[in-house]
Amino acid sequence: MSATFPAYRKLLKRAREIALLDSTGSILSWDEETYLPPKALAHRAEQMAYLSGRAHRLFTAGLVGDLISECEQHGFAPDSDEAANVREWRRSYDRKTRIPARLVEKFQRLRSHAREAWGEARQESKFKLFKPHWQKLLDLQLQFADLWGHTGSPYNAHLDEYEPGARAEDLRVLFAALRPEIASILGPAVERSKAAPRSLLNGHYPIAAQQAFNREVAEAIGFNFESGRIDTTTHPFCTGLGPNDCRLTTRYSEEDFTVSLYGVMHEAGHGLYDQGLPPEHYGTPLGNAISLGIHESQSRLWENHVGRSLDFWRHWHPRACRHFPSLLRLAPGQIHAAVNHVAPSFIRVEADQVTYDLHIILRFEVEMKLLERQLHVADVPAYWNEQFERMFGLKVTKDADGCLQDIHWSIGLLGYFPTYTLGNLNAAQLMRRAASDNPTLNAELAEGKYSTLLAWLREKVHRHGMRHHPQPLMKLATGAPTNSAAHLASLREKFA
Amino acid sequence: MSATFPAYRKLLKRAREIALLDSTGSILSWDEETYLPPKALAHRAEQMAYLSGRAHRLFTAGLVGDLISECEQHGFAPDSDEAANVREWRRSYDRKTRIPARLVEKFQRLRSHAREAWGEARQESKFKLFKPHWQKLLDLQLQFADLWGHTGSPYNAHLDEYEPGARAEDLRVLFAALRPEIASILGPAVERSKAAPRSLLNGHYPIAAQQAFNREVAEAIGFNFESGRIDTTTHPFCTGLGPNDCRLTTRYSEEDFTVSLYGVMHEAGHGLYDQGLPPEHYGTPLGNAISLGIHESQSRLWENHVGRSLDFWRHWHPRACRHFPSLLRLAPGQIHAAVNHVAPSFIRVEADQVTYDLHIILRFEVEMKLLERQLHVADVPAYWNEQFERMFGLKVTKDADGCLQDIHWSIGLLGYFPTYTLGNLNAAQLMRRAASDNPTLNAELAEGKYSTLLAWLREKVHRHGMRHHPQPLMKLATGAPTNSAAHLASLREKFA
Repeated sequence: MSATFPAYRKLLKRAREIALLDSTGSILSWDEETYLPPKALAHRAEQMAYLSGRAHRLFTAGLVGDLISECEQHGFAPDSDEAANVREWRRSYDRKTRIPARLVEKFQRLRSHAREAWGEARQESKFKLFKPHWQKLLDLQLQFADLWGHTGSPYNAHLDEYEPGARAEDLRVLFAALRPEIASILGPAVERSKAAPRSLLNGHYPIAAQQAFNREVAEAIGFNFESGRIDTTTHPFCTGLGPNDCRLTTRYSEEDFTVSLYGVMHEAGHGLYDQGLPPEHYGTPLGNAISLGIHESQSRLWENHVGRSLDFWRHWHPRACRHFPSLLRLAPGQIHAAVNHVAPSFIRVEADQVTYDLHIILRFEVEMKLLERQLHVADVPAYWNEQFERMFGLKVTKDADGCLQDIHWSIGLLGYFPTYTLGNLNAAQLMRRAASDNPTLNAELAEGKYSTLLAWLREKVHRHGMRHHPQPLMKLATGAPTNSAAHLASLREKFA
Repeated sequence: MSATFPAYRKLLKRAREIALLDSTGSILSWDEETYLPPKALAHRAEQMAYLSGRAHRLFTAGLVGDLISECEQHGFAPDSDEAANVREWRRSYDRKTRIPARLVEKFQRLRSHAREAWGEARQESKFKLFKPHWQKLLDLQLQFADLWGHTGSPYNAHLDEYEPGARAEDLRVLFAALRPEIASILGPAVERSKAAPRSLLNGHYPIAAQQAFNREVAEAIGFNFESGRIDTTTHPFCTGLGPNDCRLTTRYSEEDFTVSLYGVMHEAGHGLYDQGLPPEHYGTPLGNAISLGIHESQSRLWENHVGRSLDFWRHWHPRACRHFPSLLRLAPGQIHAAVNHVAPSFIRVEADQVTYDLHIILRFEVEMKLLERQLHVADVPAYWNEQFERMFGLKVTKDADGCLQDIHWSIGLLGYFPTYTLGNLNAAQLMRRAASDNPTLNAELAEGKYSTLLAWLREKVHRHGMRHHPQPLMKLATGAPTNSAAHLASLREKFA
């Protein structure tokens, strides 16, 4: 009945118009990554700026603020759909309207210059090329934090964009406890790994065969190809382009088929979340994913807990051999060991499951110190290299392998990195609970049956959209907020 | 200086905003044909309706009419850029505003039902399934012709949409003279063709090899892959998605590589026109193609006059053999003969160069009779079959091979077919003039050098955008309006 409340109805209509614009922007962006001819980039940028400008104006209009206020005063039942949508519209409206348009434009300009400078800086491994741009971005980001407002660290104002309700103070405690535990797992894991190098997998795997195998796996875990597809890009991603249109990408190595396979399983994990969002709420917060940390939990769960398990390879080995006959030379256990090879290394995106979170913790510390003005941009390389050696036992010899390796800071993503580790912790926690809620789950997974697991995730996570913030959602799904117990237990079980 | 006239400046700004919306709509439409997951169709339709609705409102606003009037009164120099743009904005504005919004919507609804009914009707070859829908479309199209206004046949009001300035009365005379001439070429051509059936080409041609060869040819004729690409669809097309973004599609037969090759050469011909439009006029009439008959002249020129010539196969045969070693069994002359095989057949899109225009003439006569109320929709199949037998000597046994074969009428395209034949005539006329303007042209083409021909087309056709209507353009480029002399001479030379 309450959907007949006029102010709410008007907001719904506006939200759906914005969703048409946003989803159109998403297809332009997907096309830019996949198929756009190189010289068409300038026009594409104009199209995207036009659409996002219009969507921004539609949402930040004074009228929208008034309608939200009217809805707040109307007093929808606290657990109603309407209350959840209004709450999220308010959050988003305040964040978007507290930054004056001229600062938003300034930020966009800085980002695009910084992105370009970073590309060159990484290429030549020259931090000084990136430094002045990063400094300008950071100054503006400090100003944004004040405009958004925050309690505690200014970091919280940024973190809230990606992980509603998360607090830097809590992350600091969580990560401080996590670090020595990982260190204690790392030593034995590295020792064990020496017997099964990644190069065990090296061979010749034609791309067409990889595509066929990946599709078989993606379909088996439940990704719906009537409502989605897989294309090729340098950096794999998943993007939802509207109801029933979810697109994954992966990249191929002809020497090692698992590069594309785990790319697909990771992105399909994101895609299953997208395909599980309630279509009737499309265009409103209840039809959107709640946070990056929850999104990443879905990708990590399918990639690591399903895809990198011994049961997975016991089931899929004969099927993989149909596509790649040379795999007959390896036993499932050998493939499992090779895809779980552990060794400290410089590059985050190539890191194994054990060391991955150390990469994140280092980045979180850099971000915190920068925002709390305990570290100058100019001193980041020295700080990074010192910390890196302490954590990984490796000496960084060039910044391209160090603090210049990731694109995030150059495009203004600050407070984003910790959501990767939150995703890892959430994944393990959800997986453990799914197994205890479904006593036959592990037996089913061993037979390559994934529907019970997917149904459980749909029920506990996907269908809620933004109804619950990440921590209430994790409590409802697993009985506890995000913590490292399940993650560490799972690492120990696999690696120690 | 005149670009500083405020009303003109405002129109430019509006036109460029509309171009952003239209080009975004084009990418949605390209994606729908190439990569869209099947279930995403409904959302895609909503996105496209939103964008086209907004573009339509922006252009048909009363303000735009006022600005155009202001510009008309301002008196720009007759051959200025401004005068050409204002003239075309007026043409388009009047056409778009003379049909009330409710009739436009009614037309869209009828079209989408008619399209669906036609699909089923063709599938089952049951004309009666399509008949009532066609009748409704036609009634509305007669009403449109009156609203647009016309002198002479109501056909002119429709024709003007695709071929500015063309008149049905002239086409009737042109086609009446063409028909017996084609008939006189057909007999000997069919006789000669018996020695070289299409099946000469039959073999196994892997798609990847076809793609590589097609790309080599498209690059050689000048298609720029930095600003364009080729994808796969059931029905080949070419679409310009903005400056430096022109996309072709083709379809593949593994038995016959020339299906995809000529698809690419045809669409690349369209693409070269698109890539030759002046980028500084993007978004305004001067940056657009002038008509379908001129567009089709470009595709036919490259497909038929370049691609189906003996010189083409003499030059490309060794290159084709690198991709398709089995082609070594054939001499260039045999391939040339096979790709120019002539035989009357039922389906227009599969027709050879000689019979093609007969298919068009038949459709033009049906359309004229319908619009001039000399033929009832119900009587189209009988009329078609009788005329077809007279023209082709073949008895139509099912309407799917007759009046139901083309999609055009079901989606409201009336007055569109004759532009295919205009394209054929224009292509021959332009080719003949290009050769007489450039004495070394034929020698260059024989060596696989296409830059002189392309430069001539750029100069005479592409760079003008909509500055000249088709007939003035043809006169400037070739010294005469569209006529059949060059086309018939070229057919006689090749086939008789």
